[in-house]
Amino acid sequence: MSDIVYDIPDIKESVARHTLAVLVDNEFGVLARVIGLFSGRGYNIESLTVAEVEHDKKLSRITIVTSGSEMVIEQIKRLIESMVPVYKVNDMTVEGKDVERELALVTIKGNKRVEEVAKTFEARLVSAAGENCVFEITGTSKKVDDFIEVMRPLGIVEMARSGVVAIAGNKRK
Amino acid sequence: MSDIVYDIPDIKESVARHTLAVLVDNEFGVLARVIGLFSGRGYNIESLTVAEVEHDKKLSRITIVTSGSEMVIEQIKRLIESMVPVYKVNDMTVEGKDVERELALVTIKGNKRVEEVAKTFEARLVSAAGENCVFEITGTSKKVDDFIEVMRPLGIVEMARSGVVAIAGNKRK
Repeated sequence: MSDIVYDIPDIKESVARHTLAVLVDNEFGVLARVIGLFSGRGYNIESLTVAEVEHDKKLSRITIVTSGSEMVIEQIKRLIESMVPVYKVNDMTVEGKDVERELALVTIKGNKRVEEVAKTFEARLVSAAGENCVFEITGTSKKVDDFIEVMRPLGIVEMARSGVVAIAGNKRK
Repeated sequence: MSDIVYDIPDIKESVARHTLAVLVDNEFGVLARVIGLFSGRGYNIESLTVAEVEHDKKLSRITIVTSGSEMVIEQIKRLIESMVPVYKVNDMTVEGKDVERELALVTIKGNKRVEEVAKTFEARLVSAAGENCVFEITGTSKKVDDFIEVMRPLGIVEMARSGVVAIAGNKRK
């Protein structure tokens, strides 16, 4: 039954956004394999970040935002976990109370209105040359989306987003 | 001649860190192929971020930090550019004056010293529960490294980094 479900991409019921944190060996064949697992099966990746785990340079932490029903997400988790150099997959969304943040750099022609919007969103000016200003904004994806939405009619020149980073937030310990 | 150079990974002279911004079709087979190109040839990826380009949801921007000699980087650029759904590869490092930023979420047991360090680095408290505090810090990779270096002996519980995002900074127009 489960096989059939995964082959029908337009089952929209109970499809939700999930953020997966995957701890893997810091070898880049591993990243290619994890991503290949998604692309090979037609699973969507909304954003992906990967960086070394600080206290152990041999490990990398991949954060993937994807969408799917509970069954599909469970299947993805199991497939990733069955890969040899994967140590752990945490569904941050299910565990709840996670802190999710994203970083964006946005270049925009500066003017009074732009400065006001930046201030409202607590965006920080990190570079200015001529009429162009580069703002750094961090927050939930929703906040970054909103900032861009308001800035867009004011003339965005260039933009780069990091994708989502997530960490357990409201744990007891 | 060039083929020989790429097969000798221990040529260390003039090896430098490069940040590549790659604009691709927003299909995830593409990401797997770009990464496969690195892993297949033994090129190192220090960090990678990918997210949709806001003004055109059909495009994604992949930012890859890698290291290599000028020749290797040039070869990587050419290989990526020859992939069909790739529109553009910018070596942000070579173009110079780019703005590079990284985001990290760091969970640490809070105390007076931790608060002081956070304040010095302009890290923002984004979640607190019991004795654990989650700080968000943004800056150059160097600044994030330094923050972690100072915080580590104070007891880091968990950490997640976004990897580098880069944008052209000091352009005339």
